[in-house]
Amino acid sequence: MLDEARMLDSADPLREYRARFDLPEGVIYLDGNSLGALPKATKTRVAEVVEQEWGEGLIRSWNAPEKGGADWINLPQRVGGKIAPLIGAKPHEVIACDSTSVNLSKLIAAALHMRPGRKVILSEPGNFPTDLYMIEGLEKQGLAEQGLASRDAIIEALDDDVALLLLTHVHYKTGAMFDMAAVTKAAQDAGAQVLWDLSHSGGAVEVDLTAANADFAVGCGYKYLNGGPGAPAYAYVAERHHGDLQQPLTGWMGHAQPFAFDDAYAPAPGVDRLLAGTPPILGLSALEVGVDLIAEIGMGPLVTKSRQLSEFFRKAVSERLPELELVSPTDPTQRGSQLSFRHAEAYAICQALIARGLIGDFRDPDVLRFGFAPAYVSFEDVALAIEALAEIIETGEWDKPEFKQRAAVT
Amino acid sequence: MLDEARMLDSADPLREYRARFDLPEGVIYLDGNSLGALPKATKTRVAEVVEQEWGEGLIRSWNAPEKGGADWINLPQRVGGKIAPLIGAKPHEVIACDSTSVNLSKLIAAALHMRPGRKVILSEPGNFPTDLYMIEGLEKQGLAEQGLASRDAIIEALDDDVALLLLTHVHYKTGAMFDMAAVTKAAQDAGAQVLWDLSHSGGAVEVDLTAANADFAVGCGYKYLNGGPGAPAYAYVAERHHGDLQQPLTGWMGHAQPFAFDDAYAPAPGVDRLLAGTPPILGLSALEVGVDLIAEIGMGPLVTKSRQLSEFFRKAVSERLPELELVSPTDPTQRGSQLSFRHAEAYAICQALIARGLIGDFRDPDVLRFGFAPAYVSFEDVALAIEALAEIIETGEWDKPEFKQRAAVT
Repeated sequence: MLDEARMLDSADPLREYRARFDLPEGVIYLDGNSLGALPKATKTRVAEVVEQEWGEGLIRSWNAPEKGGADWINLPQRVGGKIAPLIGAKPHEVIACDSTSVNLSKLIAAALHMRPGRKVILSEPGNFPTDLYMIEGLEKQGLAEQGLASRDAIIEALDDDVALLLLTHVHYKTGAMFDMAAVTKAAQDAGAQVLWDLSHSGGAVEVDLTAANADFAVGCGYKYLNGGPGAPAYAYVAERHHGDLQQPLTGWMGHAQPFAFDDAYAPAPGVDRLLAGTPPILGLSALEVGVDLIAEIGMGPLVTKSRQLSEFFRKAVSERLPELELVSPTDPTQRGSQLSFRHAEAYAICQALIARGLIGDFRDPDVLRFGFAPAYVSFEDVALAIEALAEIIETGEWDKPEFKQRAAVT
Repeated sequence: MLDEARMLDSADPLREYRARFDLPEGVIYLDGNSLGALPKATKTRVAEVVEQEWGEGLIRSWNAPEKGGADWINLPQRVGGKIAPLIGAKPHEVIACDSTSVNLSKLIAAALHMRPGRKVILSEPGNFPTDLYMIEGLEKQGLAEQGLASRDAIIEALDDDVALLLLTHVHYKTGAMFDMAAVTKAAQDAGAQVLWDLSHSGGAVEVDLTAANADFAVGCGYKYLNGGPGAPAYAYVAERHHGDLQQPLTGWMGHAQPFAFDDAYAPAPGVDRLLAGTPPILGLSALEVGVDLIAEIGMGPLVTKSRQLSEFFRKAVSERLPELELVSPTDPTQRGSQLSFRHAEAYAICQALIARGLIGDFRDPDVLRFGFAPAYVSFEDVALAIEALAEIIETGEWDKPEFKQRAAVT
């Protein structure tokens, strides 16, 4: 298997990109779907932002380059504009700001505003928690009603009360992927709009918001975009909605003229009005490097390799470790860049893997999850991961007290 | 004047701290009230977070130290707990998260929830725009009504409809400071609560939220706390309100058990429930260094020096430049760590100052604003600023086309 993996690596058109990332010695990292790896260029760029732009430029760095600045003021738009082509959007339809959670709340509220008389925000049970909690937050304010339907019943649940269908395109736990165009059409046929959470999609799977006629989307900067821990998120609003776009977190940076310091709010054009507070420059600058690198590699080759990697892993597991029950779709075109397996001892197995430097993650109650970030994961990584996983399960290496004690996060 | 300044510097107990900041050659920086200077230790710390914690530790860094992590998961609480003593709060009453704008919206909504039947959020015209815009955002959702009264009439405007009084403690433009304890008491006597925006106070003036019996507060990380451009903000909720605290941006990080991934939201204890999305680790780490440094210097000495610096400046201006009309209070105990002056050509004067490396800022339509961050501004800085300002005004040096063309920000 290792020989086969090495042959695949030598034929991999993306093999040179692995060296563009800092990957720790002795670690096989299959958790880029949780926190992406560090692009080497980020170190230099962050140091430059801190030392030159902040330290030397100080307040002047907010200004445009022609005024001697670092153009911080346009960073949310610039980074958003670079994310746009990765998700099939136009540059002025995407802005990088706040967290995925906060952007969800803004866009749910915006969708409610566009559908007076409809209050239901429909989603599925088991969606990523923050998506559901953000609906609940608006529900407690009396502004929304949460509706839930399992994914096989979600189309028929689209009745006249549904203002918005909020779904995560690639499910965080199973990796199952919705048919974005078909679901969007069904929702719109029922008079609803659709908000896609692309957190597990952007930078990993093919997304074409324009072709799908999507209304809204949000996504995460710290997974496949490699923007760093807690990186700013992004928000998308289809151009056709820019005129009607109204969201409640109307901060000064979303004002048409922030530096006029008017008492009355007047929205900035288009997605700029999604800005609330002062943009987080360190986080946005690190995110920009990650986005630039993914854009340089290109979504087409990334998607192809992602499928090859996960298929290599899936087939090997099904042959060698039939006790691991595949939770993800078998067809690689129906899933994201990850595979999840159910096992009663998933937590301890995950910890035993981490002790060997093989980092995947665990999701309650019994799911082992492996992400295959195609920009830096090699086929050899995958083959070695299979070997380690097989040994740990076959020898019962996981069955130790230190592997069973729960930690805060992974 | 320069001799006097140098004598004051040599007697300044904080003089050694200037060397703890990176200040560019040839620049006199009187804009720390807009963006604080770079602590030298921040460079090392940010590089460590990027290279070791992110690059090497990867997802493991979220864990507690005893699990080999960098304890990222507790960073919002840790930084908040360090800000707390600077503003007279208890460590568990403060959390560092999101932007000031977003935190304002959370706490306005929380205050409305605690005062059913009252919808008015009272503020003053000319408050910092984002404070007013955030009220407006909730007003457009039908949840709040904005009330405005000038500061001399604000106490009498506190009627039975007012749920919350939202004021900025130190006014961003004039530097005028409210009597926090007196205003809080008046509002509470009228059955309202008070939310203080400490953006221009924290790290610069004496604030004692506990002594003032304040209900809520927010503040900015990138001004006197030197947290870096767009640093995370902080939010304070008095302990007595923790049980009733409900805010609408209920993200997964504000859940009692985020990693249980429950479909239903259950709030984390106390201010932890103000968290929404994944904490911005780069920004929080940089902010922590700034906060540590301010805490090391100590609020007492900082407040004393702040008053000395601004008084030195004020007196010199009143003697040499009577055409500059003081907008700030004359009494240093009645203002923040800044002085503002009105002049018809304020914009061009500000640009001419910047061309000489003397950085203050301009606020529409005619205000020149100078901030005196006591941690790194010297009396010599102030004396040289006066000299430059006098020359620019006396010679008409500001009267050039390049100084009159407006830039985006300063």
